[in-house]
Parts: sequence; C-alpha cells; structure tokens
Amino acid sequence: MMDKILYGVAYYDEYMPYERLEEDIRMMKEAGINFVRIAESTWSTHEPQNGVFDFTSVDRVLDAMHKADIKVIVGTPTYAVPTWLVKQHPDVLAVTKNGPGKYGARQIMDITNPVYLFHAERIIRKLINHVKDHPAVIGYQVDNETKHYGTAGDNVQFQFVKYLKEKFSTIEELNKAYGLSYWSNRINSWEDTPSMVGTINGSLGSEFSKFQRKLVTDFLAWQVGIVKEYSQPHQFVTHNFDFEWRGHSFGIQPDVDHYEASKAMDITGIDVYHPSQSQLTGAEISYCGDIARSTKNANYFVLETEAQAFKNWTPYPGQLRLQAYSHLASGADMVAYWHWHSIHNSAETYWKGLLSHDFKPNPVYNEAKVIGAEFQELSDHLVHLKKQNKVAFVISNESYTSINWFPFSDNKNYNDVFRRLYDELYKLNIECDVINPTFTNLQDYDLLIVPSLYTVNDEFLHQLNDYVNNGGHVVYTFKSGFTNENVQVRTVKQPGIISEACGIEYSLFVEPGQTGLKGSLLEIDSSEGPVQDWMELLTPSTAEVLAYYDHLHWGQYAAITHNHYGKGTATYIGFFPSEAVVKSVIEFVISKIPSLKKESFAFPIITKTGKNQFGKTIRYYFNYSDNPETIRYPYSSGQDLFSKQEVLTGDTVEIKPWDVVIIKS
Amino acid sequence: MMDKILYGVAYYDEYMPYERLEEDIRMMKEAGINFVRIAESTWSTHEPQNGVFDFTSVDRVLDAMHKADIKVIVGTPTYAVPTWLVKQHPDVLAVTKNGPGKYGARQIMDITNPVYLFHAERIIRKLINHVKDHPAVIGYQVDNETKHYGTAGDNVQFQFVKYLKEKFSTIEELNKAYGLSYWSNRINSWEDTPSMVGTINGSLGSEFSKFQRKLVTDFLAWQVGIVKEYSQPHQFVTHNFDFEWRGHSFGIQPDVDHYEASKAMDITGIDVYHPSQSQLTGAEISYCGDIARSTKNANYFVLETEAQAFKNWTPYPGQLRLQAYSHLASGADMVAYWHWHSIHNSAETYWKGLLSHDFKPNPVYNEAKVIGAEFQELSDHLVHLKKQNKVAFVISNESYTSINWFPFSDNKNYNDVFRRLYDELYKLNIECDVINPTFTNLQDYDLLIVPSLYTVNDEFLHQLNDYVNNGGHVVYTFKSGFTNENVQVRTVKQPGIISEACGIEYSLFVEPGQTGLKGSLLEIDSSEGPVQDWMELLTPSTAEVLAYYDHLHWGQYAAITHNHYGKGTATYIGFFPSEAVVKSVIEFVISKIPSLKKESFAFPIITKTGKNQFGKTIRYYFNYSDNPETIRYPYSSGQDLFSKQEVLTGDTVEIKPWDVVIIKS
Amino acid sequence: MMDKILYGVAYYDEYMPYERLEEDIRMMKEAGINFVRIAESTWSTHEPQNGVFDFTSVDRVLDAMHKADIKVIVGTPTYAVPTWLVKQHPDVLAVTKNGPGKYGARQIMDITNPVYLFHAERIIRKLINHVKDHPAVIGYQVDNETKHYGTAGDNVQFQFVKYLKEKFSTIEELNKAYGLSYWSNRINSWEDTPSMVGTINGSLGSEFSKFQRKLVTDFLAWQVGIVKEYSQPHQFVTHNFDFEWRGHSFGIQPDVDHYEASKAMDITGIDVYHPSQSQLTGAEISYCGDIARSTKNANYFVLETEAQAFKNWTPYPGQLRLQAYSHLASGADMVAYWHWHSIHNSAETYWKGLLSHDFKPNPVYNEAKVIGAEFQELSDHLVHLKKQNKVAFVISNESYTSINWFPFSDNKNYNDVFRRLYDELYKLNIECDVINPTFTNLQDYDLLIVPSLYTVNDEFLHQLNDYVNNGGHVVYTFKSGFTNENVQVRTVKQPGIISEACGIEYSLFVEPGQTGLKGSLLEIDSSEGPVQDWMELLTPSTAEVLAYYDHLHWGQYAAITHNHYGKGTATYIGFFPSEAVVKSVIEFVISKIPSLKKESFAFPIITKTGKNQFGKTIRYYFNYSDNPETIRYPYSSGQDLFSKQEVLTGDTVEIKPWDVVIIKS
Repeated sequence: MMDKILYGVAYYDEYMPYERLEEDIRMMKEAGINFVRIAESTWSTHEPQNGVFDFTSVDRVLDAMHKADIKVIVGTPTYAVPTWLVKQHPDVLAVTKNGPGKYGARQIMDITNPVYLFHAERIIRKLINHVKDHPAVIGYQVDNETKHYGTAGDNVQFQFVKYLKEKFSTIEELNKAYGLSYWSNRINSWEDTPSMVGTINGSLGSEFSKFQRKLVTDFLAWQVGIVKEYSQPHQFVTHNFDFEWRGHSFGIQPDVDHYEASKAMDITGIDVYHPSQSQLTGAEISYCGDIARSTKNANYFVLETEAQAFKNWTPYPGQLRLQAYSHLASGADMVAYWHWHSIHNSAETYWKGLLSHDFKPNPVYNEAKVIGAEFQELSDHLVHLKKQNKVAFVISNESYTSINWFPFSDNKNYNDVFRRLYDELYKLNIECDVINPTFTNLQDYDLLIVPSLYTVNDEFLHQLNDYVNNGGHVVYTFKSGFTNENVQVRTVKQPGIISEACGIEYSLFVEPGQTGLKGSLLEIDSSEGPVQDWMELLTPSTAEVLAYYDHLHWGQYAAITHNHYGKGTATYIGFFPSEAVVKSVIEFVISKIPSLKKESFAFPIITKTGKNQFGKTIRYYFNYSDNPETIRYPYSSGQDLFSKQEVLTGDTVEIKPWDVVIIKS
Repeated sequence: MMDKILYGVAYYDEYMPYERLEEDIRMMKEAGINFVRIAESTWSTHEPQNGVFDFTSVDRVLDAMHKADIKVIVGTPTYAVPTWLVKQHPDVLAVTKNGPGKYGARQIMDITNPVYLFHAERIIRKLINHVKDHPAVIGYQVDNETKHYGTAGDNVQFQFVKYLKEKFSTIEELNKAYGLSYWSNRINSWEDTPSMVGTINGSLGSEFSKFQRKLVTDFLAWQVGIVKEYSQPHQFVTHNFDFEWRGHSFGIQPDVDHYEASKAMDITGIDVYHPSQSQLTGAEISYCGDIARSTKNANYFVLETEAQAFKNWTPYPGQLRLQAYSHLASGADMVAYWHWHSIHNSAETYWKGLLSHDFKPNPVYNEAKVIGAEFQELSDHLVHLKKQNKVAFVISNESYTSINWFPFSDNKNYNDVFRRLYDELYKLNIECDVINPTFTNLQDYDLLIVPSLYTVNDEFLHQLNDYVNNGGHVVYTFKSGFTNENVQVRTVKQPGIISEACGIEYSLFVEPGQTGLKGSLLEIDSSEGPVQDWMELLTPSTAEVLAYYDHLHWGQYAAITHNHYGKGTATYIGFFPSEAVVKSVIEFVISKIPSLKKESFAFPIITKTGKNQFGKTIRYYFNYSDNPETIRYPYSSGQDLFSKQEVLTGDTVEIKPWDVVIIKS
Repeated sequence: MMDKILYGVAYYDEYMPYERLEEDIRMMKEAGINFVRIAESTWSTHEPQNGVFDFTSVDRVLDAMHKADIKVIVGTPTYAVPTWLVKQHPDVLAVTKNGPGKYGARQIMDITNPVYLFHAERIIRKLINHVKDHPAVIGYQVDNETKHYGTAGDNVQFQFVKYLKEKFSTIEELNKAYGLSYWSNRINSWEDTPSMVGTINGSLGSEFSKFQRKLVTDFLAWQVGIVKEYSQPHQFVTHNFDFEWRGHSFGIQPDVDHYEASKAMDITGIDVYHPSQSQLTGAEISYCGDIARSTKNANYFVLETEAQAFKNWTPYPGQLRLQAYSHLASGADMVAYWHWHSIHNSAETYWKGLLSHDFKPNPVYNEAKVIGAEFQELSDHLVHLKKQNKVAFVISNESYTSINWFPFSDNKNYNDVFRRLYDELYKLNIECDVINPTFTNLQDYDLLIVPSLYTVNDEFLHQLNDYVNNGGHVVYTFKSGFTNENVQVRTVKQPGIISEACGIEYSLFVEPGQTGLKGSLLEIDSSEGPVQDWMELLTPSTAEVLAYYDHLHWGQYAAITHNHYGKGTATYIGFFPSEAVVKSVIEFVISKIPSLKKESFAFPIITKTGKNQFGKTIRYYFNYSDNPETIRYPYSSGQDLFSKQEVLTGDTVEIKPWDVVIIKS
C-alpha cells in the first residue's frame, strides 16, 4: 500500500486546550512521526448543527501537516453521533436487550437506522469530497471499531425475520433446525416470531448473533462504497478492527467477522492493546497481528496501540520500542499510537498518549524519538515483511457465540481456549496464521490447531478429515465438531464427523474436580490442575492414548489421543488443558512433523521471521524480560541491523532486557 | 394409586431430530421403563395456531406405548406459552418488580391473567378430552413446577387489595398490624394502596408473598378441577412440585405452599435434583421425599430426577442405582428421569437424559437396565412403603419469607437453618416427617425439630408449649417465636410465648465474631466457628444451660439451653450452629427420649425403614462412599432381597461402595 | 443555643403497638432523657388524606413531655411522602438514571417537583404553626438526611441547562471548559443538551453533581425560610446531616455540601453511626464531629446515633457511655439516640433503640441511665466546649465527585484517602478542624492536611502556596492540584500550581504492584504494601526526598518529598499510602513544627481537649480497648470530674477498659 513503515498518532486538534498545532508538528517531526489519523471522533465539530458543515479544523491540520510532510488518514466520523441528531431523532440509538439507549457514549446507535444512515452518509460525502484532493491525504478509515452494539429493536427484528425466511425454505424447516418445539417456542407463522431479546434458544440466538455480525459487514461495506466514490487511486481505505475486550485485547472479536468485514477494505487495520510493565509478553501483539495479516494474507496496519495509556500500561524503559518492533515482526506496516496527547476532560483522560497532559517531552515520548529515527533508517529493510507459515489456527465466530450459550466453564469462554493454545505456540516460537472455516486451501499448512470448533457445518469437518488423510496434522480440543452450523448437536457418537480421523468416540463428559493425568506418553510438568473445567470420557477406536485420566471412577477413559489417519495424524485433547499440557502436546506433535522445526529457545526470548521486499530474510529476536538473554544464531551469516555488525553462524547473540536484535541474512 | 413401582422417563417425541419412536420404545423396554410422561412442555405443537389443535404426536406416542405396554402420564401443556399467544396478547406475561416480561423462557406468564386462563383452559379441555379414554393413560400432571413467577402487575395488585380488605375489618387494623405509620407508609384509603413492587414494609411484603403462594394453590386447583371433569376413575391427577433452587434442590420451595397446593392432587409429585459424583450424599433425596410424603401422609411420585444431567452430575458407576433405591426408601412409588434423550438444541442441551445425544446405549443407560430389571422383580416387596416416624420437622413458608426480609446472615436464609438441622439428623439416621404449623396432631411425634420459626401465630406456639407440657420434646433454633403471623415482633420478652416452655428469655442479640462455646455439658467436636451469624444472649429462668458463649463480654449468657416443662423438654439453640453443634445437641436430646433409638452407625452408611404392603419390614442400607462399609445387623432375621440370602440377627453385612442392601424381615 | 447538654431520643408515638406514652416518659425520666425528637417521619399520620390534617399524636406527645419537663424538637415530615400523594401524583418521585421511582422507601421524591413542594410547604406551615407556641418545643429540624436522591428527570435537566447558561457566557466556552468536542459530545445549541443521565463526560457529570448538591442546599434553605416565619426567637432550626454510608458513617457526604447547606441552620445537626463492639475506635465520632463543628465553627448536635442498633453494633458494657462522652469531647452539645424503642414491623426492625421490642429495661438502657445521671450532674462543666485546633483538613466535595469519575483504584474512593489520613492523626491524638476550599483564613492553622485535592480552582492553590510561603505547613497526597474547577486537567507539569511550593514535578504515574520504599529518611514500620493503588513518579526540583520507590525500573523517582518554601514547608505523598507511611510522615512533619506537640501516648488511648464555658480546660481521656491503660498526666493540676479527686501534674491516671476519665484544670 505505502512504500515505508508508517509511524503515527491519532491527532485531535479539536480537543486542544490551547493553540498547539505548530508546536505539536515540531515535536512530531522530532519523533519521526510520518502520519496522523484524524476526524473519526468529531462529527459534532464538523457538523455543529443539522446540515451545517465546518471543516476548519480538518483543513488547518491537513495544510499544516502537508507543510511538514506528515501524511494524514481521514476517518469518517460516524461512530460517535452528535447531540443534535439524538435530540431530534432519539430512535437512532440502538434498542438492545437492556432497552432504549441513552446519549453520551460513542457506539450506541442502531447501525441499520435510516435516520442515522441518512446523516452518516451526508457527513461522509461532505467530508471525503472536501479532503479527497488534498495532497496530505493518503487514505481513509471508515468508522471506528464498529460493532453491532447489540442492536435488536423492532426494525432489526423485522430484517431478521426476512433473513430467516430467506434461509429456510419452509417454516417447518426452521422449527426443526433450531429445535423450537422445545418449551413451546415453535414459530408456526412468521408473524409469531418473538423478539430475539428474550430467546432462550441457543440455535436461534446464535443465528441472530451471526445476523448481527452481518449487519457490521454490510455497514462497513456500505461506507467503503461511499468513500470509494470520491477517493483517489493512490488513497487506501481501511478500518480499525478491535478484539474481545478484557481490559485489553483478548482473543477474537465476538461481534464482528473480521474475515468477511475486511473484504471491503484495501488493507486491514486493527488496534492492539495489551498488558504492559511486568505483564508484557508480546502475545497480544502476536495473535492480533496474525489475525489481521491472515484476513487478507497481506501486511496490515496497527492503527492504534498504547503509548503511555493507563497507570498499569505506562511502559518500562525499552518496552515502547520492543512493542513497536514486535508489530513489524508480525507483518505490520504501521505502528500508530492512540494518541498524540493526553486529553484534559471527558472520559479517556487517563488513557494517556505519547505526551502527558503537560505536552512536554517525557520518557515515553523520548523513546518514541528513538523508534522514529530507527524506523526512518531501517524502513526499507523492514516494510512489507512476508511470511510463509506452516501452522494455522482455525477460529470460529460461530463457536464463540454458541459456546457462550453452552459454556463449558463458569469463568472461561471460547477465547480462553484459543489463547491457552495460541500462547503456548507463541512461547515455543511457532509462528501461525489464523484462518476460519471458510478457508479452502488447508493443504497450505502442515499443522492445524483447532480450538473447540463447537459449531461448524459437516462440509468443513469432512475437509479436515480429508486434510489429515492427505498428510496434514490437526490438534483438536474438546467440544470440537459437537454441533452443526445450526448449533444442533450431532446425533451420532461424538466427536461426530471427526471421530473418523481422530480414532475416538465418547458420549459422557464429567466435572474434572481434582483429576490428574496418568499413563502419559507425554512429559508434562507436574503442575496443579492439568485437567480443568470440562472432561470428555474418550474411548479410542484406533487412536493411541497419550494420557489417561487419573481418577478413581473414570481412569479407564482416555484424556489425550493421537491417531494416524491416512498420511496424517489427528490429536485430540478431551478437556480444558493446563499450559503445561498444551506445551507438552504441541512439542510432541511438532516432533513428529519433520517440516516443522522447533527453536532451541523459548519465551521470554521470542523470534519472528519473514522475507523483506528484497527477498532477504529478516529475523527478529526479542527479550521479554528483565534479564539479559543470549541465543546461539544458527542461520547463515547476516547483519545486525542496529549495530551493523556481521553475525556469523553459531555466534552468540545477546539480547538486553526488553530489547530487540534484528538480523538480516 | 398404582400397584407397582413406576419407573419412567419424560419423553418428547416432538423434540426428536429424526423418527425414533419404535427404537426408543425398544430401548425403554430393555431398560424396564414402564411409563412415560408427555406433553407438558409442548403447547405450541399441540395448538400451532390460536384455536387450531393437532394431537398427532400425542396420539402416536399413546398408541405405540400402549402396544408396548408402557403407561403414559399426560401433562397439561400450560407452563410454556406459545409464541402466537404472546404476540397477540403480550399482557399474558407477568409484570414483576423487574417490569414486563419478555418471551422466550417457560414460566413467565401471569397465572391470573384471563387471556392466559382462557387459552390454558381450552387446550386443557381439548387435550384431556382427547386422551381420557386411551388405555395407556394412567394419569395426568397439571402444569409443571408451577410458581407465581413474581407476578405483581396491576391486576394482581387489584386482587391483593381485595384480599387485604377481606382480611382486615378496618383499614386502621391493617395499618396497625403492619406498622404502616413507619416512614409515612400508611394507607388511609384503599385507593391509596401502592404497588407492592416497591414496598419496604416487611409485613406487607410478606403478606403479598403469601398471597402470591395462594395464587399458585388456586391456579393448580383450578386446573385439577378442569381435568377431573374428564378423567376416568382409575386415572390420577398429580403435579410436579419443586424446591428452592441453588443449582439443585435446596430446602423448601419459597413460592409454593406444598401442603395447601397438594390438597387438590390425588398424589403428590416432585422433582429432586441433587449434587452427584463425590458430592452425592442422598440428603436431598431424603428431605425432598420426606416433605412430599408428609404433604398427604402417603407415598409420592418422583416425577423428575437426574439421569446423566450435567457434567458434574453424571453419576459414578453405581450411583444411579443407589439413587433409585434411595427414593423408594423414602416412600416414593415412582422414579422417573428427566429425561429419556438429550436434547439437540435450545436451552437444556446439557441437561442430559438417560441417552446421550447419540441415542446409543451408554454406561448410565446400561445401569438403568439393571435398575429396571430389579424393580420389576422386587416391586411387590418395595412398593407402598409405609413409615411411622416419631420425629418431625416443623417448617414454615411464612418464616422463609420474613427471614428474607430480616436476614440473620449475609449469605444464609431460612433453608440454611432447615438444612443444617435436617442434614445432621439424616447423617445420624433419624428418619423424619416434615409438617407445618397447620398440622394439628403434634402428639403423633416424640420429638419436633423447629428451625427458626420466625413468623407464626400465637395459637401454634401455645400448641407447642402444650405439646411439651404433655410429654413432647422440641428443639428450637434462634429467632423462633419472634414475630406473629403479621411479621410483627412480639412485644414481650423473647422468645415470646415459647419462653415458658424453654425456660429462658433474651432481649439482646449480637454479632458472634470469633465466639466459641464453654462450660458445655455437650461433647462438641472442636471445630472452628461453632457460633455463626447470629447470637442471642440468653438468660435462663428455669432452663439448664448446655453451653455458654465463650466471649470476654457476653460470657455470662447462655448459648444452648434445655428445659423440663411439664412432662417434656424444650431445647433452644440461640445461634446459627455449626454441624458439630447440631450433631451434639441432637445426640443429647435423643439420648433423653427412650422411645427414640440411635443407630450404631452413621453417614456414609444410611438406613431407611418402613413396612411394605404385606406388613413386612423393609430395611435399606446405603453406602454413600467410595469405600466398602459393614454394619452389624441387629434386627430379627430377614432376607437380603438381592442375594436372597438369609441375614441373621448379629450378622455382619457388607455394603459395597455406592451400593445398597435391602433386608426384608 | 441551649444551656445544657441535651440527652435525647427520637420518639415515635405513632409506631407504638399499644398505648405507652406515660410509661415511656417514666422510663425516659429515669434515664435522664431531657428531650425527644418527633414527627419527621410521619407525614401520613399527620395528613392522612390530601388536605386533611390530624396532629393528635403531636399534641399528646407535646403535652405529656411538657408535663414531664422533657423538651421536644419537631421535625418537618417531608422526607417520607404519603401513599396518597404518590398515588395521585406519581411524578413527585424522582426520575433517576435507573428510571422512574417506585413507592415504598423514604427519600425517593424529586425535591424540585412543584407538586411535592406544594404539599410539603402546606404540611410544614400547618404543623409548625400548630406547635410553635407550645412550651415544650425548643426547636425544629427541617426534613431529615436530605440528599438529592439522584433526581435527574426532565424538569431537573431543564433547570440544569439554565444553570449552565448562567455559568457560561457563551456556549463555546462551555464546550471548551468541559472538552465536549470529545466523542462528538459538543452542544452547539442549548436545545441539543442531552440528559445528564447518560453522559460520559466527567466534567459535565461533575458539574451536574455540584448542581444537584445545590438543589439540596436550596431545598433546605427554603424549608428553613418557611419554618422561620413561625418559629419563636428562643427556638432553633437545625438539620440532621449524614455522611457517606458504608454500613456506617464513612467520610464526607458526597451528595451534600455540608458547609453551604449548614448556613441556613441555627446549629448544625448530624447523625453518627459507627462500628461497635471490637471494631469501636471512636474515629467516626471524631471525624463526623470535627466536620459538624467546623461547618459553623461552633458546637453541634448529634441528633442520631446508635443505641443497640444491629447485632454487630450492640455495645459491649461501657461502650455506650464511652461513645456519649466521645461526642461531647468533639464539641457536641447533644447526644441523641435513634431511637427510643425498637420497631415491631416494616424495614428498620433490627435497628434497635434504647429499648428492645419488649420495652423492658435492658443492659443498654441501664447504661443510658448512668449517662443521663452523669450528664445532668456535669452538664455545666461539659457543655459548649470550645476548641482552638492548629491543624485542619481541607476536604472537597468536588474532588470526591471527580475522583469517582476518574478513580485511582478499583476499590477506593476519595473518602478512603481522607480516612487513611484522618485516622492516623486521630490515633496520634492530633485534633483537627475540617475546612473546605471556600475557607479564607488559612493562617489560623499551623498545619493543613490536604487529601487528594483533585479538583479545585487556581485561586485556592495559590492561597495554599502563599500560606506555605508565609510559614504554614501542608501535607498533600497524590493527585492534588491535578484538575481545575471544571475537572479539566491542568496543562502544565503536575502537580501544577502547587509544584512551586512542593518543589517537585511529575508527568508519569504507574501501577505500584509490589513496590516498596527505599532510601527513606522516615522510620516506616515494615508493613506489606506501603505503596498502594497509584504511584506518581516524582522528580524533585528543590524538595528533599523522604523516600524513593523501591522498584527495578522506577527506583530513581521520589515517592515522598518535603520542601521548604518561604517560611513554611510542603510535604507530598505521591501514592496511596499504608497506615504506617501516613503515621511516619505525620510524625515527621509534626516534629518539625514547634507549635504542635505530640502526646506521649496514642490509640487506644484517645484524648480530646477544649475550654468550657467558664474558661476551664476540660481534658478527656478515653480507653478504646479491652485492657486497662495508664497515662502520665503532664498538665497543671486538675480535678477528675467523676471521682472528684485532685489530679496532680505527673500523676499516673488509670483508664479502665472502654472507660473515660475527664480532668478539669
């Protein structure tokens, strides 16, 4: 998209307590900032009254940035609606299961409401038409962190019934597919369809969630369509996608299908927020990046990540730089902070930017200056990093939703399974792509990791069996294959279709309590609670048993199995595993696949690799700890991009605490 | 009612993902299933549109079952309303303190709403008239687990005011009885009566709860009346009552007066759900059964209990059978599982039945086959077990409600007191009836256990004093006798009327903190926190002090007292007692009552006894543990019903883990 | 106001279950009760129907009390509205962020609603006119524990917009001051102003809270105005203010500006509820009293405090008396219990009075008799105690509110900071006044303690700098000075204006984790977690560093600093400190101020001092423990007011557990 690493900030001239533009630009230039993102939050400034437009703040920022050779991404300001719109048309707010909304926060509107859409379209057209020819503008961001906000009012319900009518040829088919006879929930005439707000039917409810995700896809595509009517060929359109929020990015975003919604974009953008200080591991930077990169099998933008942010995220010395390179190492072509300056009022006052409220240089800003200078110097070597991973995760929005309806744990959801697996691969330095069941070229990968693929159609499971048969390797966890695409439990021995490749079956599952593992062919660190939350009583047909449950009554059942099927293998973990279990299983499986090799070191040393635009191999070595670490460099001789020194095969390379070494070879 | 042990399942042909009827019946027959319960959840199948009736699924199940000689209980399908009814008449949903209801779940309607009643009556008449002559039908269940669902809308309020008018001859009497002058809550004109939804008056609120319980009684009696217009003389009418729900049955049902509501039934039915696996103790099977049996002083039905159910309830090998006999040992004439097959969609997908989702034989189903065969063989010996217990619990819906208004603890309610006492008697193998203050023949019992009888009229307390005076024995816990039937605190020295029989008084109560017991005449296992939550500072008048509080400032006050009054004794525990305290008090009291004898063993060995229809004594010995246990059989020689071996007085009898021995003598 | 110690109870003849008046008065006289408070809760008795008045219960109580020479305070009964009013005019209930209110509790109305005001005014006029000439009436209490109850309906919003219009000369000024451009929240036309119920803007939200506090001030002043039209010159008007409620009084009242609202009163009244039994420390009696006394720099009333109250508050023997004198020692001229008798129905049944529900003498009542007799005897010596404290706390409603918007901790608010500091001074026996930023004579004090003064205008901070410059001493905690009066973060190096006097600056703040302190010039007891919740990275300019953070990455930053500025000093604690840290800092600071001297003993021995009306010094010595304690009396010889013995300088004085010694000199 762009020919260099973009290093930037979100910039809100509109929020400034006093005139700062020239001084801000001076400080940005010092820090090597080469672009800013503007306008996505400030509709009420750009359209102060209904139909009255004022792009003064946009113009002055564009002009000043251009003068300083700082590029600009312009956002459509539609995710936060103005007071006048809601006052005049209160029904633009989403009606959710909690009732009608209240004005105040962003992201509270019904993204299908025509009044909202009318006004959103008008401001988009006005703004984009206004800026499209400005030489500073390199691209556009449509909306921001769009979700469906639980919209479920009458009009959404109205559309949903039409959607169901289209999906099912007869109403009886609907009743059958979703089991609506249960508790007298049958819909015998379309007019009877109740609001989804109260439904207790997990199939129907999951379909509604899927429908809501489609609303997001449609809404974003609609915005892109409008923007494209104006945008210039050299300008891109992106969106800032986010992830499940547990105080930071955690796992997949339940309310958006990133793969579908990314299709309308020229490039996928994300925000990545992660624990910091002693909790910084890089795992979130890695998994978010892997998802973003996989949506379009291409480089991606980190449109937002933390600068100082909160008291618990203000980075230790070195961490801001470590983070920046971690993004690049996953394939990002951009690192941008939310945001430039800390805000003096309102809600996110303590989500601090590069600058504190005093606008003065501070240790974090000073570290950004180092990053900016290095990026400028190394951009050509680092931009457009390409990967060819041999391992992929298979994730599923549908399974996330349905496992929420039918949880396996009091305190865990689908993302806990995903992260339990992902993080262990990350720590073992196994780089992954992240695909979903619409992906068709499974043979591109040597190993698929399939966390609890609870809800999926028959076809994909057959594809997985074929994949194994043809020499692929799969690791499944518990509950995989349990229900079809309608969240209807399969009526055969579990795990259903994949029983064949896995060589197991089960019909009972129980509470683990204090269950351990025994008779294990794996080396598992003695750790407490290897078996957690859920425990399927597996009976092998053809599979080898890697571990049995250590339990007075269930000791004859298998816990982890490994099966040769055709030319490949399928490994199945019948419970929510401890970290040590996952590590052990992954090491076992990897050891059996010659094409995959394990690094000789593991977390806190993390390595990431790819080819740069000149076909050179770029190897990043990160140290996510307070202690200096060393590795033995095993590859063909290369150059340390920071020290410019040559690194020979077998050399010992030292990585300082919270530091990074990059070797080009 | 019936002449054999009924062993059955709830069966939902309507939920089947494919045609299964013949195969299901074949498998039922193999398992000795001799009846199924149908139709109570499937109104929307039987009346797919307003006034359109379709009993196809009922007919085919009745015919097929009859052919296989499996009997059928037909339920009135009124506890889960169809979509079309709510869409056309949204006001059939109960308005509660949380506002109007939302369609989806069962048990959400206003059971006094005439639109609901009209439609309910029509489907009942249509269905019962349709099936009444079918030879498979042995009886009917009206509605299911009926409660009032918190219904408190305008129409309920309207009826409640009329109820109050009837109860009080003048409005001033109402104000006085409920203390409405407080915080300006007086109702000086009936029109002023506020909705009960916001009341802060515990007396008024408790009366409203009582009124709501009456709505349940009336509703069920109304249904029985309709069904009886059609039912044949040999067909019974029952209801499936449930209990307070804490993830399983726990204590009495706060929202239903089981004694009143049972009156309309030919036989009382209940559902019993209990912890399983390592948590299985049998206590819930016992207490629920004791309540059910006591409602009509007769055998009862267990219309629902768990087969596999949840991951934490899937029974260890042997437990399903142990549970089945435990029900019989308490006087049940039926053991029925909810349900036959596991459901593939909707809400209770993981509340698994005898069959898993694959419909194939599994270890739990296989154990049911053993039970079914044994039941068939032993039915004549075990059916209609009669008990003559000498100990009874006195329980009180009114006290449950009022203690919720005026809790003694942050995390316990009335049922915690009930269960703390009940479970210790259970573990000591003292069988009990469970009566309430409307019971008039107190002299039938040698010992009454009265948990925190907080709210009760003067008359019953005088009866209790008389009972003691005439030779009865009572054990009270704290707060007993504190308020009258209007939840008005008695204006005399506490514990009020029963002070006389108890020989104590108090006017202060304090926080226990780390208080222990001292100077005890009891042997109490040293356990932490013998005194919990609440602590009355008792002063004996005539009572003997069994224990004092061990406390720097309250050490002069009594904690547990024992008083001779007339020919009997009254024992009073002035605090929420630890298990060890209850055990010790009960052992002390029992030791003083010659007519009561204690078994030489205790939990995990549980014994239950009664006379069968031939006047023979049936003694059950259960082992609720993972270890084999032995008892010395002290009674006249009998026969082990399983081994057919003779058991002589003094013989050692072994009971295997999670097993049962039945001796007839 | 009055010439003797008032010792009284709240008395509700209206709540009596039977005729008690003469007997109650007899028992009151025995206990030395010399006044009762009536009528504030019983509107529905006095106006049983709209416009129908009945003061029978008032009259009979007034007459009977007068006959017994017991004085009466008459309350306006407006804080609990009658049923008929709400039934006829449901909109008198406050609409809050939770929606419309429901009838039941007190304190649920919109105190700005004209229908409510009309009826309130009428009952006030009728009642006060009716009683004003009665010789028993010594004064009036307007309303009770008045707050704004979160009222935020349309009419309140309407007034708030007018308030904003008055505050800001232009709408642009408003947008700028509150940062409304953020998230498109700008108000570009007054009509667009959204309801405050959903606002996410901390500045706007804080202003609304301030406006709501003004509603309370205005409402109370309005009531006083009406009462004053009738009251006699010798009759006072007071109000019963309360404090933040955490199951007992805890810190300042967030919803009322006690200083503003007290202005309309002749004397400030408060209620004080505190932990008891082993948790009794006297700290709440002390801090509540200090605030009350400081509102008007005068003696105050304790209109309510606990007698028996709850199970956890029923006092140990001696504690009721200890508490009573503790109130006097803080400057109270009244100790009154809520309430005389325990209530037999309704909501506060377990908030027990002097009498239990049996109305009989009990240990607590018996202790009141001792107090009453002593008060009668010692009144002249103890009444009107005057203090001249050299230390003052500076507290801030505004900072409380804004710190709630921008919390520094997951489980602490402003009052935790206030109490952490206050309690350590209390335990060190340093008596304090409590002022707020409207106080102008800072030079009256030698030391100001300023807990987290987060939100305050520039002017007051400059005054604080001047105060230090002129020889004053200040101790600040973290976050002080951070935002201006609009909750806008200052745009300069923090801590902003006070940086100058403190000699420090910072721009980063981080999560402490396990951070300790090091290089400390203070002696701090080794205790876990000296640094909690929040941690500012201080860089001294001119300040001396009292302690550094003990942290691998932040070890170069200061944690506690002490700066000489002009003739005074400013000490700054950059984190939420442990008790040991506060104790240590206070001891350090006190040691540097010659005019302040530290007692040689500390909690559990508490001393309080003042001058009585004869100019004599009264010294209280309290023992808040289960163990006898002794002190060495260092002052000029005096008289023990209980034993009447002379106490010579240097004498050892023994104070029994939970006892008090008073020495006059």
